[in-house]
Amino acid sequence: MDLVSSWMNEAGMTSTIDSFGNLIGVYEGNDPSLTRLVIGSHIDTQPYAGRFDGTIGVLGAIEVIQLMQENHIKLERTIEIVSFADEEGARFNKGLFGVRALTGKLEAEEMELKDINGTTRAQALKDIELYPNHMEPPRYTPENVCAFLEMHIEQGPLLESQNLPVGIVSGISGPLWLTVEFEGHSGHAGAVPMGLRQDALVGAARVIHLFDEMVKSDLSHPTVGTVGFINNFPNSRNTISEKVTFTIDLRDLLPDRRKKYEDQLYQLITTTAQMYQLNYHITEDTNSDPKYCAGWIKEIMQEELTEMGQEPFELMSGPFHDSLIMADCCPYGMIFVRCEKGLSHHPNEYADIEDITIGTQLLYHTVTRIVNNKHLNVGGNTNESNIQTS
Amino acid sequence: MDLVSSWMNEAGMTSTIDSFGNLIGVYEGNDPSLTRLVIGSHIDTQPYAGRFDGTIGVLGAIEVIQLMQENHIKLERTIEIVSFADEEGARFNKGLFGVRALTGKLEAEEMELKDINGTTRAQALKDIELYPNHMEPPRYTPENVCAFLEMHIEQGPLLESQNLPVGIVSGISGPLWLTVEFEGHSGHAGAVPMGLRQDALVGAARVIHLFDEMVKSDLSHPTVGTVGFINNFPNSRNTISEKVTFTIDLRDLLPDRRKKYEDQLYQLITTTAQMYQLNYHITEDTNSDPKYCAGWIKEIMQEELTEMGQEPFELMSGPFHDSLIMADCCPYGMIFVRCEKGLSHHPNEYADIEDITIGTQLLYHTVTRIVNNKHLNVGGNTNESNIQTS
Repeated sequence: MDLVSSWMNEAGMTSTIDSFGNLIGVYEGNDPSLTRLVIGSHIDTQPYAGRFDGTIGVLGAIEVIQLMQENHIKLERTIEIVSFADEEGARFNKGLFGVRALTGKLEAEEMELKDINGTTRAQALKDIELYPNHMEPPRYTPENVCAFLEMHIEQGPLLESQNLPVGIVSGISGPLWLTVEFEGHSGHAGAVPMGLRQDALVGAARVIHLFDEMVKSDLSHPTVGTVGFINNFPNSRNTISEKVTFTIDLRDLLPDRRKKYEDQLYQLITTTAQMYQLNYHITEDTNSDPKYCAGWIKEIMQEELTEMGQEPFELMSGPFHDSLIMADCCPYGMIFVRCEKGLSHHPNEYADIEDITIGTQLLYHTVTRIVNNKHLNVGGNTNESNIQTS
Repeated sequence: MDLVSSWMNEAGMTSTIDSFGNLIGVYEGNDPSLTRLVIGSHIDTQPYAGRFDGTIGVLGAIEVIQLMQENHIKLERTIEIVSFADEEGARFNKGLFGVRALTGKLEAEEMELKDINGTTRAQALKDIELYPNHMEPPRYTPENVCAFLEMHIEQGPLLESQNLPVGIVSGISGPLWLTVEFEGHSGHAGAVPMGLRQDALVGAARVIHLFDEMVKSDLSHPTVGTVGFINNFPNSRNTISEKVTFTIDLRDLLPDRRKKYEDQLYQLITTTAQMYQLNYHITEDTNSDPKYCAGWIKEIMQEELTEMGQEPFELMSGPFHDSLIMADCCPYGMIFVRCEKGLSHHPNEYADIEDITIGTQLLYHTVTRIVNNKHLNVGGNTNESNIQTS
């Protein structure tokens, strides 16, 4: 954060870290009555991941301002570059933290969420001398932001398969995130007869196994379902498991189809709990609807990409991004950059500098078009779907 | 260990801790040419467990010597009481460590096994100033031990169902312990299409789910199969799992039937690895045959129990014990004490002091009969099966 902050300063911005850990660079415009343009992404990552997810969106935005400064471009409209805190949710199992703080969307008790070692989010922030105040009004509202832009690696294989360096995002299919807890009864692995067992890990295994089969049942749908996290207690080879916690990640472009899978999953969990005589508890951590990009921003991007000699290809995003939350505050647009083998959340994640450059050029042209339009003074997003989905 | 050592001293024994962490109390006999009688169990436990498993066998044995001292009984034969180190294997995933060290059964590289934090067993012993020397000859051999006795809680529900305080063990069904590793490919949970996934956790879940169904397929058999430990990497809700390690614990009174389940399990693992395009690796950590108690020791116990006005009930042990290893060195006998609801490896584990007293009295009488028999000078166990199994 210190390094990125220093790059913001070099590019002619003032930079601050707010009390939630968001790093914000401000490139002041001449007319404070105009709503702001916000650009950004995140620099946090997964515990086992790469160097491009999020990062190119923050560095690309700084590069845009750097170019403006070098070309002595004075703006009427203020631009803010944000490196949003904790997009990934890797530590407290609930992501998009910083962007939700900036838009007033934090939930009650959120600061008391604990990491695997029992440290609360409040304490973790305190440890780096940040003291969030919930009473502060949010920095971004539909009244003071005209648009949000984000550049990001695709994290999927589509642009590569189309042989295209960049793409224009049509929308984000929001995820459903659940945490499931099964509680059975511990006992000696060598002594408790099979018929008397209440093995929480076997229950969890049945759900993980059959949930995967369920989501795979029709591979023509883009629906994805994942269990990425599991915690087993007491986790000793000689002891029947008493308590297992695992997460569910379910995404679809069509809310109705996602709901159908969600209902089937709840049924699967209930049946499994009965079969193995387990208590169960399901917590809904995140439940986001799809959010569609603003038509007029996509049009700007299409025109600029065509101007640059590139094909203006549109695609949907399976992964969510900070944009998912900003979408409730203002119209938004996203640029995707081709990602090798569609691989992300993996150390081998890779995007070519040539492709990132094309994405950054598109971002620059889009920003220029937006800041020069004085009439864009009202935010709020209509979230119109004009997507063709199969 | 310091406390138990002090109790050994109070009971008239000299006590030492050997270089592997075994605590040994010696009650010296008058005739050093006679082979020793060894009695003992363990005081280590599981991470989420009770206060009786192992412990009553060590304390009961000390009580036997205490009684002899109080009654001024001088013995010809030396008795040794052992509190065996690391019977449970909770930390390094390989149990019966101390008893295998005492009988020369440690395997090559065993000291390099690592705990979950990467600390080796050698280092863990060094940290408490123990420096094991593999070159030392084992303390116990068929030539210098006449018999081994162990009292233990049943850890199963049979004595309670028979309304009996204690039982005579007929033998121990040895466990098969495997560690299975699945390796697939990580990736973003929102972006990698279901058809392209190599999800290691789904593979593990399928094996855990179907292994349980397999072992449960005929509940009239006493076969038990358990997965108690699972480690998932990178274990983040937003990331497809790349590597999963889990353990298998499989036990049966009949070696042939256990082998049949083992073969089915290997088949299940192979099929699953193919289905999900995973690499797999299976390590055999422990593979013990059933070990049957010595007929002449069981006869002594039957006579003494009848003398005490109790029914001489015989039962098999599903859990293993230090006796499983001592059985290769000398004839052995075991006493089981009733255990509430058959519950063990659980904080609610409970055995009544009245029942433990009856078990200790039986141990005392058995010890007295053995030490007074001068002709018991040759060890080695015939491991004869005279068990009725269904």
